[in-house]
Amino acid sequence: MSKLWQKETDVNQLVDQFTVGKDRELDNQMAAFDVLGSLAHTRMLQSVGLLDAEDLLLIQRELKALYQQIQQGEFMIEADVEDVHSQVELLLTRRIGDAGKKIHSGRSRNDQVLVDLKLFFRHQLQQVVDETGKLFNTLIELSEQHKDVLLPGYTHLQVAMPSSFGLWFGAYAESLIDDLELVRAAWNITNKNPLGSAAGYGSSFPLNRTLTTQLLGFEDLNYNVVYAQMGRGKTERIIAQAISAIAATLGRFAMDQVLYLSQNFAFISYPENLTTGSSIMPHKKNPDVWEIMRGKCNRLQALPNDVAMMTTNLPSGYHREMQLLKELLFPSFQELNECLHMANFMLQHVSIKADILNDPKYAYLFSVEEVNKLVLNGTPFRDAYKQVGLAIERGEFNPAKEVNHTHEGSIGNLGTEHIINNMNRMLQSFNFAKVDQAIAELTA
Amino acid sequence: MSKLWQKETDVNQLVDQFTVGKDRELDNQMAAFDVLGSLAHTRMLQSVGLLDAEDLLLIQRELKALYQQIQQGEFMIEADVEDVHSQVELLLTRRIGDAGKKIHSGRSRNDQVLVDLKLFFRHQLQQVVDETGKLFNTLIELSEQHKDVLLPGYTHLQVAMPSSFGLWFGAYAESLIDDLELVRAAWNITNKNPLGSAAGYGSSFPLNRTLTTQLLGFEDLNYNVVYAQMGRGKTERIIAQAISAIAATLGRFAMDQVLYLSQNFAFISYPENLTTGSSIMPHKKNPDVWEIMRGKCNRLQALPNDVAMMTTNLPSGYHREMQLLKELLFPSFQELNECLHMANFMLQHVSIKADILNDPKYAYLFSVEEVNKLVLNGTPFRDAYKQVGLAIERGEFNPAKEVNHTHEGSIGNLGTEHIINNMNRMLQSFNFAKVDQAIAELTA
Amino acid sequence: MSKLWQKETDVNQLVDQFTVGKDRELDNQMAAFDVLGSLAHTRMLQSVGLLDAEDLLLIQRELKALYQQIQQGEFMIEADVEDVHSQVELLLTRRIGDAGKKIHSGRSRNDQVLVDLKLFFRHQLQQVVDETGKLFNTLIELSEQHKDVLLPGYTHLQVAMPSSFGLWFGAYAESLIDDLELVRAAWNITNKNPLGSAAGYGSSFPLNRTLTTQLLGFEDLNYNVVYAQMGRGKTERIIAQAISAIAATLGRFAMDQVLYLSQNFAFISYPENLTTGSSIMPHKKNPDVWEIMRGKCNRLQALPNDVAMMTTNLPSGYHREMQLLKELLFPSFQELNECLHMANFMLQHVSIKADILNDPKYAYLFSVEEVNKLVLNGTPFRDAYKQVGLAIERGEFNPAKEVNHTHEGSIGNLGTEHIINNMNRMLQSFNFAKVDQAIAELTA
Amino acid sequence: MSKLWQKETDVNQLVDQFTVGKDRELDNQMAAFDVLGSLAHTRMLQSVGLLDAEDLLLIQRELKALYQQIQQGEFMIEADVEDVHSQVELLLTRRIGDAGKKIHSGRSRNDQVLVDLKLFFRHQLQQVVDETGKLFNTLIELSEQHKDVLLPGYTHLQVAMPSSFGLWFGAYAESLIDDLELVRAAWNITNKNPLGSAAGYGSSFPLNRTLTTQLLGFEDLNYNVVYAQMGRGKTERIIAQAISAIAATLGRFAMDQVLYLSQNFAFISYPENLTTGSSIMPHKKNPDVWEIMRGKCNRLQALPNDVAMMTTNLPSGYHREMQLLKELLFPSFQELNECLHMANFMLQHVSIKADILNDPKYAYLFSVEEVNKLVLNGTPFRDAYKQVGLAIERGEFNPAKEVNHTHEGSIGNLGTEHIINNMNRMLQSFNFAKVDQAIAELTA
Repeated sequence: MSKLWQKETDVNQLVDQFTVGKDRELDNQMAAFDVLGSLAHTRMLQSVGLLDAEDLLLIQRELKALYQQIQQGEFMIEADVEDVHSQVELLLTRRIGDAGKKIHSGRSRNDQVLVDLKLFFRHQLQQVVDETGKLFNTLIELSEQHKDVLLPGYTHLQVAMPSSFGLWFGAYAESLIDDLELVRAAWNITNKNPLGSAAGYGSSFPLNRTLTTQLLGFEDLNYNVVYAQMGRGKTERIIAQAISAIAATLGRFAMDQVLYLSQNFAFISYPENLTTGSSIMPHKKNPDVWEIMRGKCNRLQALPNDVAMMTTNLPSGYHREMQLLKELLFPSFQELNECLHMANFMLQHVSIKADILNDPKYAYLFSVEEVNKLVLNGTPFRDAYKQVGLAIERGEFNPAKEVNHTHEGSIGNLGTEHIINNMNRMLQSFNFAKVDQAIAELTA
Repeated sequence: MSKLWQKETDVNQLVDQFTVGKDRELDNQMAAFDVLGSLAHTRMLQSVGLLDAEDLLLIQRELKALYQQIQQGEFMIEADVEDVHSQVELLLTRRIGDAGKKIHSGRSRNDQVLVDLKLFFRHQLQQVVDETGKLFNTLIELSEQHKDVLLPGYTHLQVAMPSSFGLWFGAYAESLIDDLELVRAAWNITNKNPLGSAAGYGSSFPLNRTLTTQLLGFEDLNYNVVYAQMGRGKTERIIAQAISAIAATLGRFAMDQVLYLSQNFAFISYPENLTTGSSIMPHKKNPDVWEIMRGKCNRLQALPNDVAMMTTNLPSGYHREMQLLKELLFPSFQELNECLHMANFMLQHVSIKADILNDPKYAYLFSVEEVNKLVLNGTPFRDAYKQVGLAIERGEFNPAKEVNHTHEGSIGNLGTEHIINNMNRMLQSFNFAKVDQAIAELTA
Repeated sequence: MSKLWQKETDVNQLVDQFTVGKDRELDNQMAAFDVLGSLAHTRMLQSVGLLDAEDLLLIQRELKALYQQIQQGEFMIEADVEDVHSQVELLLTRRIGDAGKKIHSGRSRNDQVLVDLKLFFRHQLQQVVDETGKLFNTLIELSEQHKDVLLPGYTHLQVAMPSSFGLWFGAYAESLIDDLELVRAAWNITNKNPLGSAAGYGSSFPLNRTLTTQLLGFEDLNYNVVYAQMGRGKTERIIAQAISAIAATLGRFAMDQVLYLSQNFAFISYPENLTTGSSIMPHKKNPDVWEIMRGKCNRLQALPNDVAMMTTNLPSGYHREMQLLKELLFPSFQELNECLHMANFMLQHVSIKADILNDPKYAYLFSVEEVNKLVLNGTPFRDAYKQVGLAIERGEFNPAKEVNHTHEGSIGNLGTEHIINNMNRMLQSFNFAKVDQAIAELTA
Repeated sequence: MSKLWQKETDVNQLVDQFTVGKDRELDNQMAAFDVLGSLAHTRMLQSVGLLDAEDLLLIQRELKALYQQIQQGEFMIEADVEDVHSQVELLLTRRIGDAGKKIHSGRSRNDQVLVDLKLFFRHQLQQVVDETGKLFNTLIELSEQHKDVLLPGYTHLQVAMPSSFGLWFGAYAESLIDDLELVRAAWNITNKNPLGSAAGYGSSFPLNRTLTTQLLGFEDLNYNVVYAQMGRGKTERIIAQAISAIAATLGRFAMDQVLYLSQNFAFISYPENLTTGSSIMPHKKNPDVWEIMRGKCNRLQALPNDVAMMTTNLPSGYHREMQLLKELLFPSFQELNECLHMANFMLQHVSIKADILNDPKYAYLFSVEEVNKLVLNGTPFRDAYKQVGLAIERGEFNPAKEVNHTHEGSIGNLGTEHIINNMNRMLQSFNFAKVDQAIAELTA
């Protein structure tokens, strides 16, 4: 394998395999973003006199062509090329000769990979937000559609008080908004420009980092170059926490689904072709999708810890194992998006059982309603509580199975419009348009 | 122990000890916030006709007195009282009789503890932000003060390029701003009102949750009552992630400190009375403060995982073990604040070694500078790189030990004013004033 | 606070509080073991000529008296004494003068605390094994007592095949045996003598480490002194894994309990005074003990990760934060033992529901039985499977609700005697008697 | 995709992709072990009259042929076959017709995959032990070879006392023995037969589980069938802990290596072709192998937590996400073995720097030696300590740079023969020969 930094001595083959590992494979996913970084970097180089206008023209033309090519899936790191950066430089040099070699001035592979990762993560976070918004919409629709269908509410997994499908679906919708708080924090941390930090200690070239920041649509710079380098590992850890927030919500929803699909609850069902059977039990309709989703979400919940374990106690400055974080993060985005997508798909087909509360074991659900009725009619709470409790013990508790909840966020007043407003405000706060426009201009 | 929900049968002593555990002890820390919740709740009850004006007057007067008492450290849960909520109700009833019992109408212990926790966490997060701001200021001062003192920069723990104390201190200052992104996400999630969700399924009373939201200075409601309950465990997990973000920055700084204090680096030193000795090695001046800080920060980095492990795979609805999260979270705030405070204290006494780079082992630091000089004089980068590399191999590398970095965030242009601006903008975004004012009005 | 290693300069008060923290409090638990270490160390010192016979006599007499005193709870580290080691030395010096100071020859606080911790952990592991054995016995008794009572068996939380209370209780009993494999691994690693490693690099004194190994009942030495020191953190991590193994079994059992106590399963019940009520729902009998146990066990499952996060990426040699591991480990032993004890207590009072399978929703449990009957009568399996599946779809499935399982470990042949034998063999392999005898001789 | 349990309805394509994921790919690694399970299972079926002798002959012949084929790498799950079990059955049926279908009698896919996994894990654990033994040998050799070369020993990363390369290499060798305690615990738990537990509730067929236990070379049975099923997830978690034990040792060794290769320590070096360079710093020789190893080992240290997070709070009985544990465990074995192998390879080429202690910054290393000399000549320890301490402060400390340590495990008496003996005893305790012989007989 040919390497930029190679001097006279060949690197041992075994060392090479061990240290490179799956990295080239993962690098393919970063190709488009590496080209974006070079498009901005070379325009900046020319603006400060480190590249002449003619070379810039050539370079920009070929990089834009390469960007299109990558978008169409026609890019692959060649067998003996070390990484995506080398491959891009190689293609460029093949096409435009020595001018291609000049794109590496004023940067190190360290800040090149930093900016590539930030651009890649930014793109992935956009996808996550998009899929989350779609699932939110489906949950809100189901919540409104079934807002009058009652469900037992549990505390301690004991039958407790009346709930509703409106509340159940709506709760997970609202949960996703708060999860996006973490995604936005991750987005804000990601959306700052590390380019120009070189190997983590800056450069003696008169770089204009503000210009690359604007060209790449970043909100701001990572100013301090030592901090820019420190962002490696930290960005990944915080993104992993954002991923874990959504995963925690989805995982819990999956657990509810599995439980409610059990014959012991039987609150919901799915068409047979969305469940799976058993090799020896002919009656089984197993909720495999939700179980697999629960498992995947739990794995994603462990992700931040995986990242922290790899980075803790390392002093400042670059360390080679940072590379391995790609193996943790890259597939996790895909996994989360698949889970969001699949949850959305399944919910298109969910059936709701009506009249669940007619089962006598749910009669006690209404005990608090009865206590409250007594209170509203003047009985002190503690007395009302005792009175209903004793009626239950004597087997004389026959409640009217109705609920009349009116306050904000209750069965009869879900507050859907407020929740939708909050989601919209959250989505707008990301300001994806600014990023999209910068990229469009850069590659036009 | 006397319990609100107790009917005829005594709860087994052993069960009681096992399930209550350290909870009463921790509850003492929540007392002020429980009173705040009741101040708001009772005003709301009266506004919707569930409490008469006379009772409200009595209750408010006594709750405010109790609030002052707690602030002065004169509150303690009595030996046979179950929890802080019962203690407050008991004190009230002792003082104003039956009116005291009426404060529990229209809420459950579930939403009472939810709102207490949110108010407590909100208060703790304010402290964390405050301590973080102070440490930031110290780091910025040190960065400016020592901006011209050079330091070896490492990659792979190999001597790499010139760095400076200005960069080193400044990097950690800038890091804290990004960490506050997580704290702000946690703050936003915390700063929403769960009161009125009762046992997680709402209430048949005509509560006005918008009113308690305003009175308590919350930014918004957790609308959906099932989601409000789901916030238990979730809020803790996300706060733990915010704590871990700062801990990760501090922990890494502590590792740098320990390394730089080693005789093999010797970049910094502290007065003897801030280090500790050895029982058998008379020459030792050990960096125990930074080691203990590193350890505490690593424990805090594991905290989000502890919370996730306890809450994952639990279906929706309240579960009793949520109580144990207090044992994880409450001491962690204190631990983090102590670490921030101690780091700040130590840095007041740090001494910086000048002329570090005179040591011949650091000569190679300047290799990139030399390469860049050649490039700026017209040599193509790849050629310059080879030329310097070969000079080093021949032992003929004698660099001028100067750096002249000018771009944003580099040794010669730290960008301190931008970094300070960013911190100020971050701090203002929390809008603590709104919260403080609401609490002041509620307790006046 | 007076410290052994103190020279002229006072250590700053704040530093002292920060670095010592809760350590003195935890050290009280190690007092007896510190005395044991000194009893062995001083006998060894005399045997190699580093202590004269007269001094030894005095020292041994007082240490043994102190050991008795500690056993009777009459020991407390005084307010201005740094740690347990200093307190023991102080008491000794008060009683026998200068001879008391000689016990510190030939060791460092590093190996002194190493051996104290090993002796403490050894003692704690004995308790864990003891409590585990008791819970095992109760589970086995319940398994035998209810071996004929059937229970639905679930896969995917779907009703699957007939199970029994015999299988259910017995499964957790057998699980504990495998968990003890981890405890034995931890025991083996703990039960090796680190004393004599001094600060982790050995000593120029002619110590006889084999002698202290025998005197303290250790199975072997940690030979290499650098490895002996490396045991700090490692021993804790592996013990934490052993604790987590039992916690995982107990936690899952607790989840089963909570589920089976839900009205949607209702397979078991407990007397009212072992459950708890609700402040607003008079009918609730909540399984709080099992929920708290599940929570505690999950926290213990996260413990090994907490230890790993604190120790990973630290180079070899002692680091001060090792001290903080006490705060993680010490309470965890108590927590685990309480959980084991409480599970055992609860199971003394569990009631089993008979005739569960009469509920029509469990009819499908017998589908495999029916398939197998057809197979035993000559129908190929795949055909039998289809035949029963179609009968179920047509609503014509009416199984005989009997099971006749005969193979090893099945409903009709639980294999209890084999399981008990395996447990006994496991328990004997710890060879606690050897340890107990050594300690008895040392303190006689 | 054709599935055994498929009735009339097609499973949705999307569901299929989501639930199967990478499972078929991973299943290829289990093929040989699936055949072993069937070889034993069918011999048992015939012995209890569930298969006739003629069919058995056909089946055994073809399974053995298939086993050879797999060993030669000529096996691949076909595109439309669900899993390895179906593929094996399909190949069999193609070759010997209906007899092939009979191998599935008396088992479920649940216990089939359980036994496959146990056999696979057993094989992998053997490899791990083997690689660990090889690395141990190299470390012991280096320890003996360099036993007289001194090295500074550090505590708190402060120069502390003299150490040696003999101690340093030997410490990691001895550490591996203790790590194998965990591997042996994992081996013991793995090496028990779950076959015959069917879907986790046993079977109405008169299976002889003792026979399959013997045929497969298992040490014992998982008796209780519910426990056998519970082994899924538990076995993986405990194996992950065993892997993490070795990873923790290797990871710390890697950290030492990276530190000692830094110009600030410079204790060791490697040939240039085993290090890597920098794209902009011509003098760099980066320790990438050790950094990548440190990162991989840290990822492996997080593995047990990943498994625990996926399995905690799941009630007993099979859950579909157990399948995902393969994605965690399978690559981890390979990763660990590569790390062990690579560490061994690197150590073949390590160079040791002599005369390190001549550097004046290491003079203080000898302070304890000097204190001890004074003590051995009659000065009380506390006085000797002060005397040397004051000499250091006055700059008058000029020690003789010699060490004369004689006790067990010290610089002058490494105890290598004891350590080797302990390793040998550990290796023999696995009794791999018994397993190998059983497999040889089964496939002969």
